Amino acid sequence: MYQVLKESFQEHVSLTDEQWEMCKKKFRPKRMLKRQFLLQEGDVCRELAFVEKGSLYSYSVDSKGNQHVIRFAFEGWWMANLQSFFTRKPTNLNIEVLEDSELLVLDSKNHEKLLEEIPAYERYHRIILQNAYVALQQRVENALGLTAEEKYNRLIEQNPEFMNRVPLNLVASYLGISPETLSRVRGQFSS
Amino acid sequence: MYQVLKESFQEHVSLTDEQWEMCKKKFRPKRMLKRQFLLQEGDVCRELAFVEKGSLYSYSVDSKGNQHVIRFAFEGWWMANLQSFFTRKPTNLNIEVLEDSELLVLDSKNHEKLLEEIPAYERYHRIILQNAYVALQQRVENALGLTAEEKYNRLIEQNPEFMNRVPLNLVASYLGISPETLSRVRGQFSS
Repeated sequence: MYQVLKESFQEHVSLTDEQWEMCKKKFRPKRMLKRQFLLQEGDVCRELAFVEKGSLYSYSVDSKGNQHVIRFAFEGWWMANLQSFFTRKPTNLNIEVLEDSELLVLDSKNHEKLLEEIPAYERYHRIILQNAYVALQQRVENALGLTAEEKYNRLIEQNPEFMNRVPLNLVASYLGISPETLSRVRGQFSS
Repeated sequence: MYQVLKESFQEHVSLTDEQWEMCKKKFRPKRMLKRQFLLQEGDVCRELAFVEKGSLYSYSVDSKGNQHVIRFAFEGWWMANLQSFFTRKPTNLNIEVLEDSELLVLDSKNHEKLLEEIPAYERYHRIILQNAYVALQQRVENALGLTAEEKYNRLIEQNPEFMNRVPLNLVASYLGISPETLSRVRGQFSS
């Protein structure tokens, strides 16, 4: 159950066996079913979730009731609403389970403890945040500067398995284009 | 010259006098004039810049020649293209000086050294990245879910001095609305 988390740590930092055991103990396994909510608008985000298996996605709902997909998380990715997690204010996002999932969750107190006690854990989070920031800025740049065709192209280049695992309406929302435009773009690619 | 940087460290972490002197020595002061470029599309971003005085903004230019403002940086903010800084690949962004500025710049080698030698420096960067990530995600959510009126409203609430320091065409680009829409929205507020 902890294999993917261990690999994620090993990719970025060196933990001794003892440090790994200390980390591991702080996480709580959580199984969730498709369509369940890890977080709902109005709740405070009290836990960081690491995806061992399955997938999740986060979205906001605007004043007209339109859903806007913010991001997805597959195996080896973290998911949370960091704003709510750090400020302890209610979130304006929802996090829903896309495929039956096995998560490892970590509450704020345990996260702080690990940051205090294990410098390599803090380094790991600094690197994860760095990568997350770069990916999010890339998304902003793509949203602003690319055509629908280019956005779709970029997405399937970077995440080839994405199209098999994510329903088309969510892909369209994530790309900020209409489902009709997505169908048209996909039609061009397959013809 | 190093006062704002010192305050920024003190806000988030405790550095001993000796550690602060170690940090300080690694930065290089750089004065820049309005309209100069800290970074141009095609260059590799080799330095992180901290704004002691003045302001900068980053933007991309799409295939049709349209400018898209990504973010601004005022006193006490960091500016760089992190993707290019970490991957050492050419950037697709420009960073231009908005007002005559005094910067403190830090190259990749010195940044890595400080991360290695001073745990509090790594903590500082982890917190800065955390805050930057939260702000960027807020921007994505606003861009997706708010009307032009709401976007403008939110901006002047959070950054009241913004409107005095940033030309309207850049504000419009940053908000992802046309200059005409921005004028209309501002007209509603002043009437």
